[in-house]
Amino acid sequence: MQRIPDYVKLVENTLAQQNFDQSPKELYAPMGYILALGGKRLRPALSLAACELFGTEASKALMPALGIEVFHNFSLVHDDIMDEADLRRGQATVHKKWNRDIAILSGDAMLVKAYQYIAQVEASILPAVLDCFSQTALEICEGQQRDMNFENREAVAEAEYLLMIRQKTAVLLGAALKIGALVAGAEMKAAHSLYEFGINAGLSFQVQDDLLDAYGDPDKVGKTAGGDILQDKKTLLMIYARELDPEGWSDLRNAQLEGNEKVSAYREWMIACGAKAKAETKRDTLLKDALEALEAAHAPDEELKNELAQFAQWLSHRDR
Amino acid sequence: MQRIPDYVKLVENTLAQQNFDQSPKELYAPMGYILALGGKRLRPALSLAACELFGTEASKALMPALGIEVFHNFSLVHDDIMDEADLRRGQATVHKKWNRDIAILSGDAMLVKAYQYIAQVEASILPAVLDCFSQTALEICEGQQRDMNFENREAVAEAEYLLMIRQKTAVLLGAALKIGALVAGAEMKAAHSLYEFGINAGLSFQVQDDLLDAYGDPDKVGKTAGGDILQDKKTLLMIYARELDPEGWSDLRNAQLEGNEKVSAYREWMIACGAKAKAETKRDTLLKDALEALEAAHAPDEELKNELAQFAQWLSHRDR
Repeated sequence: MQRIPDYVKLVENTLAQQNFDQSPKELYAPMGYILALGGKRLRPALSLAACELFGTEASKALMPALGIEVFHNFSLVHDDIMDEADLRRGQATVHKKWNRDIAILSGDAMLVKAYQYIAQVEASILPAVLDCFSQTALEICEGQQRDMNFENREAVAEAEYLLMIRQKTAVLLGAALKIGALVAGAEMKAAHSLYEFGINAGLSFQVQDDLLDAYGDPDKVGKTAGGDILQDKKTLLMIYARELDPEGWSDLRNAQLEGNEKVSAYREWMIACGAKAKAETKRDTLLKDALEALEAAHAPDEELKNELAQFAQWLSHRDR
Repeated sequence: MQRIPDYVKLVENTLAQQNFDQSPKELYAPMGYILALGGKRLRPALSLAACELFGTEASKALMPALGIEVFHNFSLVHDDIMDEADLRRGQATVHKKWNRDIAILSGDAMLVKAYQYIAQVEASILPAVLDCFSQTALEICEGQQRDMNFENREAVAEAEYLLMIRQKTAVLLGAALKIGALVAGAEMKAAHSLYEFGINAGLSFQVQDDLLDAYGDPDKVGKTAGGDILQDKKTLLMIYARELDPEGWSDLRNAQLEGNEKVSAYREWMIACGAKAKAETKRDTLLKDALEALEAAHAPDEELKNELAQFAQWLSHRDR
C-alpha cells in the first residue's frame, strides 16, 4: 500500500482549511491564490513521511510541513518577478494578476507566515528546527543568486553547477525530511542521514530534469524538447559536453544554428561526445548516494523506507 | 548619566563586526551596504535598554537587537523598490546601486538573517520571542500595504490612519522593547506593558512627524516644509482638517493651488480649522499613554526608566 499519496492528500486538505481571507486583502489574497494553484506538494508530503518513518503520526508534522510548502510558494512568487514570468502552473503569476509591489510584499508576508507554521513544534526541538529552516532558506537565496549570475558567465564548472542546484532545489527536500524526522524525535544523526537522502535525491532529480529537457518525449514532458539548448542554458549536460569536446563546442557556436536545427545538432553532439552518458552516470551515482543515506538513517518503518526509496528512483528516472 | 547613547554605540560596534563578506557577493554585499549607511539604531538600542531595565546586562540582548535592526533594514530595501526611491540616507538605494532583482533577493535573505539573529536567545523564551517577532513582521507588511492602498483612496478615517502608522512604525518599537524585556526574564505582563509603551511612543513620534512636515523649521528638519501637503498625503493633520471643515477642504481643492502658495494656504487653514491643535492634543495623549504604560511595567531600574520617559518625550516633541 502506498502511503505518500495519503500524505499529499492530508497536506491538500489542511492547506484548503487555512484562512487567507484576511485584511488588507491585497496582502493575503495572493497567498491563497498561489497556494491554490496546485503543485505536487512533494516537500510537505516528505515531512510527513519522515515523521512516520520514525514511528510518529504524520499529523504531528503537519504545521511545519505547511511551513515548508508556504516557503516554497513564497520563493516562486519572488522568482517569478525576477524571471518576469507571466505564467505559473498555467495561470497568471502574482505580479501579473496584481502587480510588482503586491508580489514583493505578499511574498515577504508569506516568508513570515512560513516561519509561523514552522515554529509550531514542541519547544524542545524548536531551536534545531529553526536552525535547519533558516540555514536552508538562506541557501535557497544563495542558489537563486548563483543561478542569476550564471546567465552573465561565459562558462560554469561542474562543481559550481552542482552547488547551485543543491542550494536552489535539493536543500528544501533535505530540510523537509530532516524537520519531519526531528518532529518525530529522531536522533540528530538519523535526521541528518535523511537530510542527505533528500539532498542527493534532489540533485538526481534535477540532473534528470536537464536530461528530459533535451531528450524527453515532448508528449510526456509537456513542453517542446530543447528549451535549454535554444536558450544556451548552462545545464550539466552542456557543461559536460563543453568539457569533453571543446572544439566541437566552438564549431557549433560558430555555426550559429537556430530553432529545430540547433536543437537537433546539439542533441546529437551531446550524445556523440559522451555528455549524455556522463550525465546519466552522474544521475545514477546521486541516486545511489541517496539510497545509501536512506539506509544509514536506520528508520524503523521498513515499509515506508522502501516506498521512499522507490520514490527517489521515480524522481531520478521519471519520463515526464 | 545617559545610558541610551552607550547602547547605540554597543549596537554600532557589534554591527561593524558582522561579516557580510560572503559568497555570492551580490547577495551579501547589499546587506553590509545598507547596514553601514547609518540610521539612529533606536530600535536595537531600545532592546538593550529594556533588557537592563529588568536588571540583566544589555549584552545578553545584543543578538536579538541586531535581528530587529536587520529586519528594519530589510524593510527599507523592499520599501525603496516599491517607492521607487533613488536615495536612502543620502546614498543610492540598493535597487539603484545594484538592481531590482538583487534588492528583492538580498532583502529576502536579510529577513532570514534577521530570524537567525532573533533566534539567538535562551531556548526557554524562544517561542515567546519568535511569536512576538513574527506577529510584528506580519503587521509591518500589513501596514505597508495599507499605506500603499491609501494612495488610491479618496478619504481615510482617523482610525484607519492610526492602524496604518501603528503597524508600519510603532509595532517594531514595541517588539524591540518587549523582546529585550523577555531576554531579561521579565514577566509577560511587564513585557507587554513595555510593548504598549513602545506602541504609544511610536504613534506619538509619527504624529509629530506629520506636524514637523507641515510646520517644522526647514533648517532643523532638514527638508522643505510642506512635502506632504504638496503630495496630497493623507496625514493625520489632513484627515482632521477635512473632518473639521469639509467645506474649507472643498474650496481649497477647487482653488487648485500649487507650490509655496498651496503650502501656505493649507498651513493656515489647518491652524484655523483646529486640525493642528487637534493633532497636537492627540500627540500629547499618546505620549501620556506611553508614559503610563512605562510606569505599569514596574521596572526595577528607576534611573533608566526615567531616561526612557525622557526619550519618549523627545521623540514626540523633537523639532528636527
